[in-house]
Amino acid sequence: MSIHQKYKEDYLDQFKDRPYERNVMKKGSSDSPEEECGIFGLYSENEIDTFSLSQFGLFALQHRGQEACGISVMKDGKIVNLKEEGLVLDFFKTIREPSNFMGNSVIGHTRYTTAGDKKKYNFQPFYAKNEYDQIILSIAHNGNLTNAQELKTELEAEGVVFRATSDSEVILRLIQKHLDLGLRAAIKTTMEKIEGAYSVVGMTRNKFFAFRDFNGIRPLVLGAIDEKTFVCASESVALDAIGAQYVRDILPGEIVYTSENESGLKSFMVKENCINKICSFEYIYFARPDSILENINVHEIREKSGEKIWEQAPVEADIVIGVPDSGVPAAIGFSKASGIPFRPVLIKNRYIGRSFIVPTQEMRERIVNLKLNPIVSEIKGKRVVIIDDSVVRGTTAKRLVKILRDCGVKEIHFRSVSPPIIAPCYLGIDTPSKDELISANMTVDELKDYLGVDSLEFLSVENLKGILGSPNHCFGCFTEIYPVKRGEESVLF
Amino acid sequence: MSIHQKYKEDYLDQFKDRPYERNVMKKGSSDSPEEECGIFGLYSENEIDTFSLSQFGLFALQHRGQEACGISVMKDGKIVNLKEEGLVLDFFKTIREPSNFMGNSVIGHTRYTTAGDKKKYNFQPFYAKNEYDQIILSIAHNGNLTNAQELKTELEAEGVVFRATSDSEVILRLIQKHLDLGLRAAIKTTMEKIEGAYSVVGMTRNKFFAFRDFNGIRPLVLGAIDEKTFVCASESVALDAIGAQYVRDILPGEIVYTSENESGLKSFMVKENCINKICSFEYIYFARPDSILENINVHEIREKSGEKIWEQAPVEADIVIGVPDSGVPAAIGFSKASGIPFRPVLIKNRYIGRSFIVPTQEMRERIVNLKLNPIVSEIKGKRVVIIDDSVVRGTTAKRLVKILRDCGVKEIHFRSVSPPIIAPCYLGIDTPSKDELISANMTVDELKDYLGVDSLEFLSVENLKGILGSPNHCFGCFTEIYPVKRGEESVLF
Amino acid sequence: MSIHQKYKEDYLDQFKDRPYERNVMKKGSSDSPEEECGIFGLYSENEIDTFSLSQFGLFALQHRGQEACGISVMKDGKIVNLKEEGLVLDFFKTIREPSNFMGNSVIGHTRYTTAGDKKKYNFQPFYAKNEYDQIILSIAHNGNLTNAQELKTELEAEGVVFRATSDSEVILRLIQKHLDLGLRAAIKTTMEKIEGAYSVVGMTRNKFFAFRDFNGIRPLVLGAIDEKTFVCASESVALDAIGAQYVRDILPGEIVYTSENESGLKSFMVKENCINKICSFEYIYFARPDSILENINVHEIREKSGEKIWEQAPVEADIVIGVPDSGVPAAIGFSKASGIPFRPVLIKNRYIGRSFIVPTQEMRERIVNLKLNPIVSEIKGKRVVIIDDSVVRGTTAKRLVKILRDCGVKEIHFRSVSPPIIAPCYLGIDTPSKDELISANMTVDELKDYLGVDSLEFLSVENLKGILGSPNHCFGCFTEIYPVKRGEESVLF
Amino acid sequence: MSIHQKYKEDYLDQFKDRPYERNVMKKGSSDSPEEECGIFGLYSENEIDTFSLSQFGLFALQHRGQEACGISVMKDGKIVNLKEEGLVLDFFKTIREPSNFMGNSVIGHTRYTTAGDKKKYNFQPFYAKNEYDQIILSIAHNGNLTNAQELKTELEAEGVVFRATSDSEVILRLIQKHLDLGLRAAIKTTMEKIEGAYSVVGMTRNKFFAFRDFNGIRPLVLGAIDEKTFVCASESVALDAIGAQYVRDILPGEIVYTSENESGLKSFMVKENCINKICSFEYIYFARPDSILENINVHEIREKSGEKIWEQAPVEADIVIGVPDSGVPAAIGFSKASGIPFRPVLIKNRYIGRSFIVPTQEMRERIVNLKLNPIVSEIKGKRVVIIDDSVVRGTTAKRLVKILRDCGVKEIHFRSVSPPIIAPCYLGIDTPSKDELISANMTVDELKDYLGVDSLEFLSVENLKGILGSPNHCFGCFTEIYPVKRGEESVLF
Repeated sequence: MSIHQKYKEDYLDQFKDRPYERNVMKKGSSDSPEEECGIFGLYSENEIDTFSLSQFGLFALQHRGQEACGISVMKDGKIVNLKEEGLVLDFFKTIREPSNFMGNSVIGHTRYTTAGDKKKYNFQPFYAKNEYDQIILSIAHNGNLTNAQELKTELEAEGVVFRATSDSEVILRLIQKHLDLGLRAAIKTTMEKIEGAYSVVGMTRNKFFAFRDFNGIRPLVLGAIDEKTFVCASESVALDAIGAQYVRDILPGEIVYTSENESGLKSFMVKENCINKICSFEYIYFARPDSILENINVHEIREKSGEKIWEQAPVEADIVIGVPDSGVPAAIGFSKASGIPFRPVLIKNRYIGRSFIVPTQEMRERIVNLKLNPIVSEIKGKRVVIIDDSVVRGTTAKRLVKILRDCGVKEIHFRSVSPPIIAPCYLGIDTPSKDELISANMTVDELKDYLGVDSLEFLSVENLKGILGSPNHCFGCFTEIYPVKRGEESVLF
Repeated sequence: MSIHQKYKEDYLDQFKDRPYERNVMKKGSSDSPEEECGIFGLYSENEIDTFSLSQFGLFALQHRGQEACGISVMKDGKIVNLKEEGLVLDFFKTIREPSNFMGNSVIGHTRYTTAGDKKKYNFQPFYAKNEYDQIILSIAHNGNLTNAQELKTELEAEGVVFRATSDSEVILRLIQKHLDLGLRAAIKTTMEKIEGAYSVVGMTRNKFFAFRDFNGIRPLVLGAIDEKTFVCASESVALDAIGAQYVRDILPGEIVYTSENESGLKSFMVKENCINKICSFEYIYFARPDSILENINVHEIREKSGEKIWEQAPVEADIVIGVPDSGVPAAIGFSKASGIPFRPVLIKNRYIGRSFIVPTQEMRERIVNLKLNPIVSEIKGKRVVIIDDSVVRGTTAKRLVKILRDCGVKEIHFRSVSPPIIAPCYLGIDTPSKDELISANMTVDELKDYLGVDSLEFLSVENLKGILGSPNHCFGCFTEIYPVKRGEESVLF
Repeated sequence: MSIHQKYKEDYLDQFKDRPYERNVMKKGSSDSPEEECGIFGLYSENEIDTFSLSQFGLFALQHRGQEACGISVMKDGKIVNLKEEGLVLDFFKTIREPSNFMGNSVIGHTRYTTAGDKKKYNFQPFYAKNEYDQIILSIAHNGNLTNAQELKTELEAEGVVFRATSDSEVILRLIQKHLDLGLRAAIKTTMEKIEGAYSVVGMTRNKFFAFRDFNGIRPLVLGAIDEKTFVCASESVALDAIGAQYVRDILPGEIVYTSENESGLKSFMVKENCINKICSFEYIYFARPDSILENINVHEIREKSGEKIWEQAPVEADIVIGVPDSGVPAAIGFSKASGIPFRPVLIKNRYIGRSFIVPTQEMRERIVNLKLNPIVSEIKGKRVVIIDDSVVRGTTAKRLVKILRDCGVKEIHFRSVSPPIIAPCYLGIDTPSKDELISANMTVDELKDYLGVDSLEFLSVENLKGILGSPNHCFGCFTEIYPVKRGEESVLF
Repeated sequence: MSIHQKYKEDYLDQFKDRPYERNVMKKGSSDSPEEECGIFGLYSENEIDTFSLSQFGLFALQHRGQEACGISVMKDGKIVNLKEEGLVLDFFKTIREPSNFMGNSVIGHTRYTTAGDKKKYNFQPFYAKNEYDQIILSIAHNGNLTNAQELKTELEAEGVVFRATSDSEVILRLIQKHLDLGLRAAIKTTMEKIEGAYSVVGMTRNKFFAFRDFNGIRPLVLGAIDEKTFVCASESVALDAIGAQYVRDILPGEIVYTSENESGLKSFMVKENCINKICSFEYIYFARPDSILENINVHEIREKSGEKIWEQAPVEADIVIGVPDSGVPAAIGFSKASGIPFRPVLIKNRYIGRSFIVPTQEMRERIVNLKLNPIVSEIKGKRVVIIDDSVVRGTTAKRLVKILRDCGVKEIHFRSVSPPIIAPCYLGIDTPSKDELISANMTVDELKDYLGVDSLEFLSVENLKGILGSPNHCFGCFTEIYPVKRGEESVLF
């Protein structure tokens, strides 16, 4: 779930017009929602149940996207594709003949999107056909290109027809265009043309491949089940789910691929010595706590962020509460460092993810506790530290403060274990535009007053870098300094 | 989610034949799944958005049943009924004209069921029609009757036609049969005939009512939004969700009802001085932690159960882990009492609730971490206390122990914060039959060996009574002593 | 197919707004399309394939209504009902378990309607349920009541709920209301209250019945397959279709019915010595030519009408053409009487019955030959007598004249073998209102000029009476003298 | 409707197993139903309502096929295709945005098929796509190839993928394969390779074309609405329906086509001086009586055939009856020639075309009059000449004779106005195999006894040639001499 999505799920917001849908491809007619998605790819020279393995792997990545799911399967020299709106397990139930989906390779995608264009042609994996209606190439992409519109215009001038509104199709069509150079060269040429964030898995009718952009912005890990069975996935939890061993992360600028004649997976560096600048927000919010990305344990980062914010901004209080789910490990870290007891007293309704229909204005104002309900007796009269992973537009925080105040909390000390978000992401995360990011429009002091809390602190960028152990991640949304130059259209933000 | 449901969700079990579906009405041809469900009822003399209020209220009770949802609405002297398979919010989206569902009263039901009979005629609220096809009576029921088959046979002999396989229809038809005595008398007569556990909300075309069995086995709370707007619901969280104030619990043997001529809600005691014997498992597992039942805070009971099991069976260990979600508060209580640090290192995939389709045997054996995945680095080499709310058939516990052992855990000390379950419930909870309840078939020592743990302890019934502060709850599944005599057919268990 | 329907099918008319939908129940909110329908009923004490028999019987009545079809079947003391939009054979294909529809009795209905209200609740057979949702009474009706609104208002005041917009439901509810008097008495009471045209077949859970209004306006014949198997149907062709022998027509004012204890069909005269005044238009247009109604062969009447119009208005001509299908027998009679050769040179597209969608005005004017196309070589330069069954609004005739003129016909002598239609029917036939009936608004001479023909003649009422052999039929649409007084609302026409 | 179809509709036959489904492509795995279909094509340089025109044109060809309908439309350099099961007017109602279907050109197809393979991929028009999923070529075909399997095997070896089971796709793929030679050359090459009967209309993204096989076996006429708007259709009635003027028939071996640069329709003779050998059965049965094919009026041929059979085999009788619909003109011709009165006393149920479901054997035997019902009073005691267009398997004739005998007819003189059918067609008409053709297995005398008639005569081939005015038609089914050599697989018949 993206920041934006999280934001949207605030109960009241759904009833407003949404002026904040953002579109990188502003110049074109296309509507390109940016996506935070999960991808999964598997190749085996053995006979293997790719149906079950992709089901398990994608299920483990379900948190990266709940709108739609799809797979392409290579079997007997043919590619079959299926994709449907809905959750992973529901998608797999729509497959009537699992045996038709057990081939040598499978790629899969679980899609998150912000709004509107829930058309099947935007679901992934994408595919290209030959003139006899046979699929010859299929890819699944996580990320966002910054020069998609430019490339699209060029390709359209050459007669290429685009069906989807997603920039992922630009990658597909570029590889397709250069396919007669050979697969590896076609991917290389494509990577040299496209800019932005992309982790991709794909297949032709007899080859499997995966590649990652020059900054490694979106994650992509490599694993193996046996010496003839390889897996690529957005997060290591997908490897755990299928009993695969983690091998390493795919390198920035690397293509891994199979060949027709030789066994095993080959590697080719399109560009050597790229520096990995993986998105820091993957650790703060997106990735599952049990994932390991670039050798860093996500849960550990979250606990440390709680410890660090205590160091950075200590406070006297009776209890510490984490906003479920991603604020909880930080709250436990804070408790450990401070000695202030952690209390799990903010209860989240587990059946969220679907919107409410609320016909009357009166009702919109009444509902405050639907998604988070406090255990009043535990917090009444107490001095409370409340820890959340981030503050985006500020409405969730404001509402939470109201809930706590209504329970008779004595003091509220709000801690965000990420720095203030001052700029939108255009590398694969769907965030509101700048004028809606509250930290882009208020100082911390102003925000403290706006929220009505007794103290407010954000983890500093320096402290975040310290925890992550490197200054090389992408911190664009906190610093407005991005590893990739923005496309022209981004000026419009 | 019931014990059974939880049990069923064990990853491997789904692939076995399920011999354990239980049916109280063994003598008849009907298939009566027992249900643990959520009910909600609202009556107002004001013009009020009953559509939104019932949506919010039922959403807060979603954890009590996810199979189907339905409502009956009283509007302009007519009753309209809608019910569909699926979750609460999805159900409400199927309503095209919300304004048609804003009347003076609404009753709703969210249904859990074990198996098979997902026919619409088993969804609630149930209703009775007159000869012109108009609904004149509608009820929603949580619980299970012990003399349903007997009463059904009697009524059928009188010409009554049953459409559903649920015992709830017996309640409906009995009230319908006696309706010409007046509503209150009809309910009284019905309560005097039926035996077992029942919390019921209902309506005629101009009256609202709710009633609870003589032991108050299933919960039912009363709240108010204003002096002309009353709410009854299975748990207090439904009151929180709609901004209603908690008034009190409906008493065992009490009918509350509205009348045509006078304003307000009236109360009538069918039987005076009943002793409340609410199900103890509601506190242990079913109810939401932020609910308050019979003036007892559920979360508090769970934390105390962790503290108490420490007192009852202390152990030296490095960390304490709770099995999410219901084992977590107990683990925190255990940590607090023992000083052993609590670590949230067992990660639950939040998208469970849907079954996997696994065509090959090989795959069934490979999947172990799909629903619970540990953070290996946190537990490797450690002495671990693992706390779960209960042990039913033992398969989940056994699998969990295997996961932990595979991660290199040094010692495993398993604690169940409920006593051993030695007998099935037949008062509204769907449990496996006795021969499948592992504690009915093994001593604690045998079970310790079977699970392969270093120590194993169950909270004693005495300690559970101590925490709950009263010996008057139903502890039937722990003691085989029930507050209601079993029906004849129950002998068959 | 009614006059109106036929009228509507004129190619151009469909593209105009239709201001002429008529509603007898003008005072109420209900929209009561009058229907010309086919009904069928069968009762047997033998085990018999009522599924097939009702299929064949209704198929033979398909020409009386193509909008919807339905049946009620009495089997093992229960009544099952099915009805669907569409043709008879398509309807029967929707029945999955034919054996469930083989009982002791079946009633069926094939429905024609004019417009709009294609809701299932208007399809027949209608049925009434008891409070346990079981069907206890079902009827199928052909005709139209003149005091339906009055009776409906009365019944509604007593609490009866009407679901359909058809006056047929009034008959159902009246019988239901009086059912505790016994079935025969309930029907008698109903017949004494309702006024208008009605042929009805029906059933309770153990009895079959049929009855006909005091004037016998709509047809209803009685047949037998064997001495324990009786059939009632709108036309004798339904008897032919199932191998039943024609016995006699049901008498005006007669009820036929079965009883629980005795075998065979009983008869009861609600009113003795009623004079049969069957609709004369059944012979002219509605009934199939191979039907025998009241002992009169329909085909014979049609041929005789051609002979008679020759006698009434002889003319010199080269060929005589009938407008297919109902004008053809008259043309052959005309040819026989006159010696002028009959030529089948107006070709009808057999796939009519569905409307065209014509988005542009230009196209609407181009299409003239879609439904009737002449064989030009056969008529060019000829003097032609063209014979049609009737003239309603005049548009079909006008268009046909244009088609013939465009082919170079030398003279056109138009003959209608029914008298001028000067008034609407309100006894079961759907006709336009008076201001749209061209003969109500023009003299024959004016009409001759309007159509642009060389001569124009209508069969006189006297001659029609002569052919039919009796002055006792209903000739209301030709004379404005009806056998039943109009309801108050009819004044509005 | 084909001979076979007509045959199949005999009431009893549906209940037997059908061993007679025939498949020309016996060697392959494909199931190739032979089709008698209607095709329609239109090209205009004006802005024109191609939606309405194709609707009207195809509606006029509905008798050539009722299973499915489809169109391809060329608009703004794109081709859009739609096809659905069902009748023409129903198909057009499925089009939501008629304006999207108004382009410069349209081709359409109405499909008849024998059995089973009602898959959409067998509906026409067929189309070929490029690699970007755009349609670049579309065709509609009436006829049957004799070397389809051979060509298909060749093309598959080259990598062409076939999706349909129809031989029409061979034509599509051959044109597609040679498209880089230019459209005209591609069609020429295709015509030089394919053998059999084919009338084809088609389009690329900017050109329209039509062509006909070297023997002109299936009809194809050319018309014009104005000097920039051309139409090709199976029969001239389609021109009448849209107000187009008949120009001429497309010649055997001719391609007509449009070009990008010049206005108007061009013609190219792939083979000069082909002799037209149009199917004689088109005149006898298939074509509408108001059609003119190769300058011969169909109705006239049918009347003459009645006159001729009287000359060939005069008989004394009281009345002459035609089997509706196609036997009626011949009966009128017979009457005219003989002076024996024509009586329209065999009534056809107009709602045929759908099969019955008859669960019991007893019922199958009872139904005899469902589709044809005689007017008993008109034929009882009479000597009757009954005229039908042909005799295929003999079951319809036998049943008809039984019906007439049951009515008390005195003498039956059966006349077929086509010669005995002794061989199957494999050039586009679906006929049973030889062992099911009754005239291939019985002499006329044997057949007379089998049918139980007083006399039996078939029009002689010589007399048929005389009426048609030429010995050059295809009389294959009467003579077993075909204008095209059979494919190898045909030996199997």
